[in-house]
Amino acid sequence: MISNSFLTKFKEVWAISHAMRLMGWDIETYMPPEGISYRAEEMATLNSMRRKKLLEIKADVEHLEPRDDMEAGIKRVLWREIRYIDSVPEEVDAEINKLSAESAVVWRDARVKNDFSSFKPYLDRMVELKVKVAQLLGYNDHPYSSLLDLYEEGLTVNEADGIFGSLLPDLKRVLQKVEAEGRFNSPSGLEDEPYPREIMEGVVNEIAYDVLRMPRGKFRIDSSPHPFTTGINRHDVRITVRYEGFDFKRALYSLIHESGHAIYELQMDESLEFTPLAQAPSFGVHESQSRLWENNIGRSKGFVGLIYPRLKPLVKGKSVEEVYRYLNAVRPQPIRVDADELTYNFHIAVRYFAEKKLIDGSLGVSELPEFFDDMLEEYLGVRPKSYSDGVLQDIHWSHGSFGYFPSYTVGNIVAAVIYHHMDFEDDVIRGGKLEVVKDWLREKVHKFGATYPPKELLKRSFGEDYNPTRLVDYLERKYVGTE
Amino acid sequence: MISNSFLTKFKEVWAISHAMRLMGWDIETYMPPEGISYRAEEMATLNSMRRKKLLEIKADVEHLEPRDDMEAGIKRVLWREIRYIDSVPEEVDAEINKLSAESAVVWRDARVKNDFSSFKPYLDRMVELKVKVAQLLGYNDHPYSSLLDLYEEGLTVNEADGIFGSLLPDLKRVLQKVEAEGRFNSPSGLEDEPYPREIMEGVVNEIAYDVLRMPRGKFRIDSSPHPFTTGINRHDVRITVRYEGFDFKRALYSLIHESGHAIYELQMDESLEFTPLAQAPSFGVHESQSRLWENNIGRSKGFVGLIYPRLKPLVKGKSVEEVYRYLNAVRPQPIRVDADELTYNFHIAVRYFAEKKLIDGSLGVSELPEFFDDMLEEYLGVRPKSYSDGVLQDIHWSHGSFGYFPSYTVGNIVAAVIYHHMDFEDDVIRGGKLEVVKDWLREKVHKFGATYPPKELLKRSFGEDYNPTRLVDYLERKYVGTE
Repeated sequence: MISNSFLTKFKEVWAISHAMRLMGWDIETYMPPEGISYRAEEMATLNSMRRKKLLEIKADVEHLEPRDDMEAGIKRVLWREIRYIDSVPEEVDAEINKLSAESAVVWRDARVKNDFSSFKPYLDRMVELKVKVAQLLGYNDHPYSSLLDLYEEGLTVNEADGIFGSLLPDLKRVLQKVEAEGRFNSPSGLEDEPYPREIMEGVVNEIAYDVLRMPRGKFRIDSSPHPFTTGINRHDVRITVRYEGFDFKRALYSLIHESGHAIYELQMDESLEFTPLAQAPSFGVHESQSRLWENNIGRSKGFVGLIYPRLKPLVKGKSVEEVYRYLNAVRPQPIRVDADELTYNFHIAVRYFAEKKLIDGSLGVSELPEFFDDMLEEYLGVRPKSYSDGVLQDIHWSHGSFGYFPSYTVGNIVAAVIYHHMDFEDDVIRGGKLEVVKDWLREKVHKFGATYPPKELLKRSFGEDYNPTRLVDYLERKYVGTE
Repeated sequence: MISNSFLTKFKEVWAISHAMRLMGWDIETYMPPEGISYRAEEMATLNSMRRKKLLEIKADVEHLEPRDDMEAGIKRVLWREIRYIDSVPEEVDAEINKLSAESAVVWRDARVKNDFSSFKPYLDRMVELKVKVAQLLGYNDHPYSSLLDLYEEGLTVNEADGIFGSLLPDLKRVLQKVEAEGRFNSPSGLEDEPYPREIMEGVVNEIAYDVLRMPRGKFRIDSSPHPFTTGINRHDVRITVRYEGFDFKRALYSLIHESGHAIYELQMDESLEFTPLAQAPSFGVHESQSRLWENNIGRSKGFVGLIYPRLKPLVKGKSVEEVYRYLNAVRPQPIRVDADELTYNFHIAVRYFAEKKLIDGSLGVSELPEFFDDMLEEYLGVRPKSYSDGVLQDIHWSHGSFGYFPSYTVGNIVAAVIYHHMDFEDDVIRGGKLEVVKDWLREKVHKFGATYPPKELLKRSFGEDYNPTRLVDYLERKYVGTE
């Protein structure tokens, strides 16, 4: 049974977490740039307090005898976090954070200069530290499994190998058909088309508030170079959108993607607030919601038809079918963040296999650039022209977030599983009845927060979990089917 | 000597304070409105943690034997805060905060409906609680002195009586001369003139960045109905400005006033960060900086001449002399926040005398409205037409901040003292060399933070403290002199 002192201490953890989320959001949006020096200190100090508070309730959590699913969830989620804090000394985490901050600066410069060698020593040290974390946490099959589990509870190298092993040949087959057919891979002309920012902001606001019906009292939109979502609490969720000034689908889908995350945060059950369950069970499950709205729903014929009238100022007289193809263009190229829905998972696979080998020591950091380029060429038939377009393209490795990339593919698969099980009338999305979709998702996924581990949640609601064939079937039907 | 455990604990207090300042800023600027429910919980929890941390270092602070002025300052400032926390139980503070939140809502409604009776029970309870706080803290001469001291260290009823007793007859005399002369009290026509918000925002930005040279890397401007300044840390200071759409001087001086506060925050010595000295020694001293920039500098002939070319889109062809008189118009009327620099202190005096009597029990809340109107009429010859324009005009009493208003008059006096001692060439302000003014203020006032108590700081730098004749002389010279 949950004790009062446990609840009091946890409320302090809860308050610190909320403060840190706001501070993180502020860094990316409104903080004057020189504020970062003390902000980093403030956040490190709060994080350290948070660690201490969690360790103080270790015994309570260990001896908690859950009376229901909610208490079982609280025990599970807290235990995972306490286990991490208890296994990985604060000094190791502090070194990772410090290295990550320095390394991100070096990475930025290295990318501009196309100079892998300046970044290499930082990546070497980061890999060492992450191997140490994997050892400290322990594992059964493979050291990388302990890092995967941090982002996707229970995901192991064995399982991930199985997922990619099943997915990649099928996706390759679909991609070849798409390329042979030519329907989706010829440029529409809109890719390079500039737009005035005010116009695009107007469209973004219309789609957010009039189409997706995001709640104005609990939600806001700002802009930042790297779009993200911050759920401060159940009544305060914020996203950012990116405006590059051309190729309007990038801004449009940054909105829809982040709104998918935001809808999840907004629809967790109010009873979960003040508990550690007011979060998604995993990064992959959270990503499934952004990808579901971005791709399965947001790029569907029905949705494109629904928003087409609002895109009028941007589409230069193209027909709805032409806009549909522009929004769904498939074209292998080396940059992950520009990848389409079909080729995206090859980019993840390259990173998955590279990380696995870096962590088990079978690939050295010095061999990474060639491995990266070779794999990309093998999967997509394109070879990066430079380090900047290849191994240096992502910031994630400078942050040491090994194990994070695979959650993107998990997200895509889970989105396809969920989409498969949606049993609405055909005209729900086309007719803009998105409240029906949101309500259904609340009942099937959102309201539970982290009460159940990811696979258990999916099995309870859909009778299956990470089934890659749902993703292949969806993509095949969409791109080479007769729809 | 300061121990390590003391410093570690204080750093936690420091980090919590910074988080709470950001949370407070966010409430007024960008927070989605429904976020307030959990935000209040988050802040109450953090505040409670902050109290606990401070009590944990009580013995260290008590036994600290300062080796220099800085350690003496640390001991003094922390002891004042610990004494409060130790004397006033958390339940009393929590009740005040809860009542304050409820009471502000009731006050808003009461003001709209001109209904003092609905607000009365809340104010009754608030007075009771504040009397209790005064008793818990203790006092020598008068219970209200213990509340004054919370805002203005060392200020007592005896001293404040002396200040107002000296100031009011002199101000009355100057006001009569101004009214007899008629130079400053006839409307210019600009008072009701509307402006487009974009134009005014442009002017505000020009004056902030090109005239006042606020540092873009450490400073930002947002907008809110009630302008305020938040110093998150030495490298991150934010202000808000109010745009009402007419009478542009209101927006202009909300900028200059808040920039005065911001310059103070930005110019505290870097060595004070991580200590409790990185703050002003009192509300009055902080206010002296905003009032100095707003009035003594910002409404001077030199400054008006300096910014006149930038005001061109707003002044409808008026000459610089006409604009100077518009910006310095003197006109007694019942609303404090609209008051000019000369009549402002009468508004404060009314509130000072009312608060003193409410706290010592010689005035009941039911007698307050009439007392308020009578006093205002006596001082300014105007009588509020309604509760809304009289006793209900300010939010402060709903918050229970008894003792706060007098710091406004202290601020005006201190600004005049400082202005008197400024020994620049005549053309420093007129020529826009405001860096000279900022540097001088840094050396005389800002860099010390709260190292010395307010009066000691002033005596060290200027050889005098709250000398009301400086304010009278300044106003007399300006409004009825030959300048």
